[in-house]
Amino acid sequence: MEQGGISKLTLQRLPTYLAYLQSLPNDGGGTVSASSIASALGLGEVQVRKDLAAVSVAGKPKVGYRIDELRRDLEAFLGCGTRNRAVLVGVGNLGLALLSYGGFADYGLDIVAAFDKKSALVGTTVDGKPVLSIEELPAFLRRERVSIGILAVPGSAAQTCLNALIQGGVKAVWNFAPVHLTAPKGVLVQRENMASSLALLSYHLKVEEQKDLT
Amino acid sequence: MEQGGISKLTLQRLPTYLAYLQSLPNDGGGTVSASSIASALGLGEVQVRKDLAAVSVAGKPKVGYRIDELRRDLEAFLGCGTRNRAVLVGVGNLGLALLSYGGFADYGLDIVAAFDKKSALVGTTVDGKPVLSIEELPAFLRRERVSIGILAVPGSAAQTCLNALIQGGVKAVWNFAPVHLTAPKGVLVQRENMASSLALLSYHLKVEEQKDLT
Repeated sequence: MEQGGISKLTLQRLPTYLAYLQSLPNDGGGTVSASSIASALGLGEVQVRKDLAAVSVAGKPKVGYRIDELRRDLEAFLGCGTRNRAVLVGVGNLGLALLSYGGFADYGLDIVAAFDKKSALVGTTVDGKPVLSIEELPAFLRRERVSIGILAVPGSAAQTCLNALIQGGVKAVWNFAPVHLTAPKGVLVQRENMASSLALLSYHLKVEEQKDLT
Repeated sequence: MEQGGISKLTLQRLPTYLAYLQSLPNDGGGTVSASSIASALGLGEVQVRKDLAAVSVAGKPKVGYRIDELRRDLEAFLGCGTRNRAVLVGVGNLGLALLSYGGFADYGLDIVAAFDKKSALVGTTVDGKPVLSIEELPAFLRRERVSIGILAVPGSAAQTCLNALIQGGVKAVWNFAPVHLTAPKGVLVQRENMASSLALLSYHLKVEEQKDLT
């Protein structure tokens, strides 16, 4: 899947490069080679060169990449520094965890309000963010500029909530519900599948245990 | 990457099939076709048949899958019902969110203790789970049976913490730090890359905005 001329897999690796560059000492003129980056991140050198060539011309043969330039190019490409206003739908355990997690602001995500249908939650605030009734969502989206929706509702409610977000003009949705959702062209639904990660870990342990027994 | 005869990609899809089956009414003898599953989950029918054939013989030509049998086979395969004891390392915002999130228990994950180096946190409890000093980790792992480690530390500390977990006998690690880590064969490090998801959403919005301007 291509997104504006860059592959989704390359795009997914870019934040890793940026995090690595941010971890390096930066005295103004330092350089780093593709092979150093590749070995630090467990990637192939050819892949690193190809990925970085898509976003930067900071690499020079036999010299490597200027750390400051490459970092600046990656930040500009990824839209670091731009702020995206988001709403969260579904204030259960996961929703609460996401609301309380302060780290998203580092990536330009500002959660401005949360929505739930449970009347006991409506009117409360979590980490300074108001919890509003799900019925207020359409009016809120008409009134406020919101570009990202975060879905932390049960799977059975996810498509309905997604539709409400899309009708309200939201173009990018981060879906934590364990279901596949359908959306029109131009709307990105990015699924975060923590259950799958846990299943992989659990299955790995089962296989390792069986090895120990034989 | 193959894991015990099944591909990692198939394995990652299995929890999605299971969540879908759990959402269906189950009156004891109901069936569901591969094409229904495929269209509900946005997958190809051939892929669904292939994935499910790897874990179950519940499918019959022209009849489909017995919902109860397929569900039972998936649960057994994924080790649902087995409990895995875990420790969490790094009690920052993300660590706190993970400790407070009650939903992991549904997937058999029991976080039994958390570890941090900040002395202000040591001795406190989060959602009933004790926060211990990172220096106590090796002794804790010698004493207690722990199979999963969860890393929620900054990238710069992640490899050191991973090494301590591995030395303590942990075979499966869920890494939330935005770095690639190296581990010996037999140890699975599953990376959860929320920053990458956010970067994809942010980039998508940038591209869509540029379209609107032209």
